[in-house]
Amino acid sequence: MTRPGGRTARVRAQVLRATGDALAEQGFAHLDLADIARRADVGKTTVYRRWGSVTALVADLLIDMAEESSPRSDTGSLLGDLRANADLVLRTLTDPRQGRLFTSIIAAATCDVQAAEALHGFYATRVAEWAPCVERAIERGEAPEGTDAQAVIRAVSAPLYYHLLTTGRIDPSVADQAATAAAVAARAGVFVCQD
Amino acid sequence: MTRPGGRTARVRAQVLRATGDALAEQGFAHLDLADIARRADVGKTTVYRRWGSVTALVADLLIDMAEESSPRSDTGSLLGDLRANADLVLRTLTDPRQGRLFTSIIAAATCDVQAAEALHGFYATRVAEWAPCVERAIERGEAPEGTDAQAVIRAVSAPLYYHLLTTGRIDPSVADQAATAAAVAARAGVFVCQD
Repeated sequence: MTRPGGRTARVRAQVLRATGDALAEQGFAHLDLADIARRADVGKTTVYRRWGSVTALVADLLIDMAEESSPRSDTGSLLGDLRANADLVLRTLTDPRQGRLFTSIIAAATCDVQAAEALHGFYATRVAEWAPCVERAIERGEAPEGTDAQAVIRAVSAPLYYHLLTTGRIDPSVADQAATAAAVAARAGVFVCQD
Repeated sequence: MTRPGGRTARVRAQVLRATGDALAEQGFAHLDLADIARRADVGKTTVYRRWGSVTALVADLLIDMAEESSPRSDTGSLLGDLRANADLVLRTLTDPRQGRLFTSIIAAATCDVQAAEALHGFYATRVAEWAPCVERAIERGEAPEGTDAQAVIRAVSAPLYYHLLTTGRIDPSVADQAATAAAVAARAGVFVCQD
């Protein structure tokens, strides 16, 4: 994993990679700065000075994950774009490392205010990245004026996370249903803001 | 809180109430059998002998919560029933004690296999309780034959849990949109099983 920016950027990349590995393997409760420094092959003092706490590390990891996440699709139709989004979420949640990483961070957010704020920031960034798919659909006449684009994007992800957390598994049919249901409901005006 | 069944049932009710209080206040990571016995005003030996582990306690709490949960509504229309379901989930998740209890158990399920199985059992029971609302709607012609009733019920809850976990808040407009979107998508045949 190489990134531009010299030594500082390289250290950050190594430490965030180690943080993700530790989260995926052990969960938030067992995160430890010294262990992460060891995994990253970076001096403990550097990690303490630069991040100072595991919560700050998780927050920085989420900023990095949001920046590195796949950009939105542009397939030319609302259903196509929402299917691409559902497929991306499905691949992320079913990837062994990424899936465990996300469920660990969600768990952390339920008991740590700073982790929760960082997680909310991550999803706000991701939803904002994909919302233009719905705005384009409104311009094309595929959804009514006043449709809440962010609500449509959230409606695609929601069943995937819910299935995983409440049944322990998800499959492509859930992703396809989630995208189709969101597109049908958007077209019918369900997500038009009420003021 | 009184229940029929004499001393054994009373002890169970006291211990499960204390378990729920401890989960809502401190989360799963800090659950401790001795602390729960003290909160419940029940002998430590009784708690150890009857449940033996905090995971067994959480599993029993979830069985009790599933049994005690509100029965499905019968408003005479699919949209009415789904709105009643969304409203019930909203009230549960926004209730200070119940909301924290659920997010604590979801967090526990991400790192403990037995807690996860107990949680999956709880949602399977709740989804099965409400699925007949959709089966009735199919009989009335409000949704096509072959509609996956459980998928429709899950589609109502999903946005509420997702909003809470990824933004930290939910409000009645999310519940109303979730119910309406699920009803519209069900009517359009989105949840018809593909074989």
